[in-house]
Amino acid sequence: MKRYFFFISYDGCNYAGWQIQPDQISVQKVIEDKLSMLHGNTSVDVVGCGRTDSGVHASAFVFHVDLSLKLPLDTIKYKLNGMLPDDIAVHDVFEVEPSSHARFDAVERTYHYFIHQQKNPFLTNYSYYIKRNIDIDKMNEAAQFLIGRKDFTSFSKLHTDVKNNFCDLKSAKFERLKNGQIKFEITANRFLRNMVRATVGTLLEVGYGKITPEDVIEILNLKNRNDAGVSVPGHALFLAGINYPYYNTP
Amino acid sequence: MKRYFFFISYDGCNYAGWQIQPDQISVQKVIEDKLSMLHGNTSVDVVGCGRTDSGVHASAFVFHVDLSLKLPLDTIKYKLNGMLPDDIAVHDVFEVEPSSHARFDAVERTYHYFIHQQKNPFLTNYSYYIKRNIDIDKMNEAAQFLIGRKDFTSFSKLHTDVKNNFCDLKSAKFERLKNGQIKFEITANRFLRNMVRATVGTLLEVGYGKITPEDVIEILNLKNRNDAGVSVPGHALFLAGINYPYYNTP
Repeated sequence: MKRYFFFISYDGCNYAGWQIQPDQISVQKVIEDKLSMLHGNTSVDVVGCGRTDSGVHASAFVFHVDLSLKLPLDTIKYKLNGMLPDDIAVHDVFEVEPSSHARFDAVERTYHYFIHQQKNPFLTNYSYYIKRNIDIDKMNEAAQFLIGRKDFTSFSKLHTDVKNNFCDLKSAKFERLKNGQIKFEITANRFLRNMVRATVGTLLEVGYGKITPEDVIEILNLKNRNDAGVSVPGHALFLAGINYPYYNTP
Repeated sequence: MKRYFFFISYDGCNYAGWQIQPDQISVQKVIEDKLSMLHGNTSVDVVGCGRTDSGVHASAFVFHVDLSLKLPLDTIKYKLNGMLPDDIAVHDVFEVEPSSHARFDAVERTYHYFIHQQKNPFLTNYSYYIKRNIDIDKMNEAAQFLIGRKDFTSFSKLHTDVKNNFCDLKSAKFERLKNGQIKFEITANRFLRNMVRATVGTLLEVGYGKITPEDVIEILNLKNRNDAGVSVPGHALFLAGINYPYYNTP
């Protein structure tokens, strides 16, 4: 058995997220099923770099899996791509140390969130349509208050399997793209559940003028999820990059 | 009654094309239904700048319609966008001369066709996935033989309502985009049915090395549909621009 990293991407539209769940179609389940077939119908365990919620996409995602296959890496990639549906693509496969771990070894993750303000049929499933005006400069001002090692309890869904809610935010920035869309890029060592969507929701309140950039400092300090803005929809969210000490997604 | 031009775009995935057909969902039918509702439930006739086949998209499309509405143009646009599904968007509405005609007055049309060579989950419905190598330079060389006023019988589905098969091709060019996709842009005064898809299919034969660029001249001269390459799928085709003597889509 050797351990492999798979660099993949997927369109989350038709999935109840990455993680296997009872009676739901997940990306993990589809990949495990196809890899098992490739692996002589013996079951395999696929370990993802993280979770994505229902409808959330990944332009970059990494998982690890232990396989005893005699096939060249390019053949594994080629065969798996042929078996997987159109909405999941394998971009790279490579062998790693047996102790390498797709989730625990990841030191940095980047998410993108897209917003558009003019109706556009081609962005429906990949961007959040907001008709009202938003002040991007004010949102960027507010985003700067989140940079550094901060307790993100106010921006997370409560759950029990996390020991602390500290995240080290490297960057968080909105920019307007050529096609008029707004792209939010946020990078941190880790993200709590629902954190990007609650963060964008809160920064949008700033953009609407409902709260000031400085209010974001207070929301952080209160450590209470009810004080942050509502979560924005998942269909405009993309996991876009994962960095390891020994590998970065392109 | 006044005549209006509507500049719209639509994602063709869920439609049997633009044109109304029995027992099928067409873009024209959906728009006529919604405009009729806005028009006090009296029927309206929407005349498109052309037809698009099943699954074909339009990043730019124009139709005309006669309405007796007291609403400001911005309100018509706003209300119709609210009534239409996410996959059809109205970008502009303006009054034209009562004699203006969305189809007959169009002097130039531009189509885009997209190709990608690496599996990509986000391009599935909008680009043609070709695994093999293609020689774009050779395809561009061949495309140049099509420029000018030529009889495109070899690149058209036979049908009876067209008096002649001459089209004046202004430009036809493949280019590689930053994301690795290949974009084909073709502009002409008119297009015959199936013409872009048969043209791309034939130029791909050149790209595969099955025929030479010069063979395209002979295929044109034979004026026989069976001599050209097979049609490529419609889901990667976009009507992308329509020009009138008095209006150009952006």
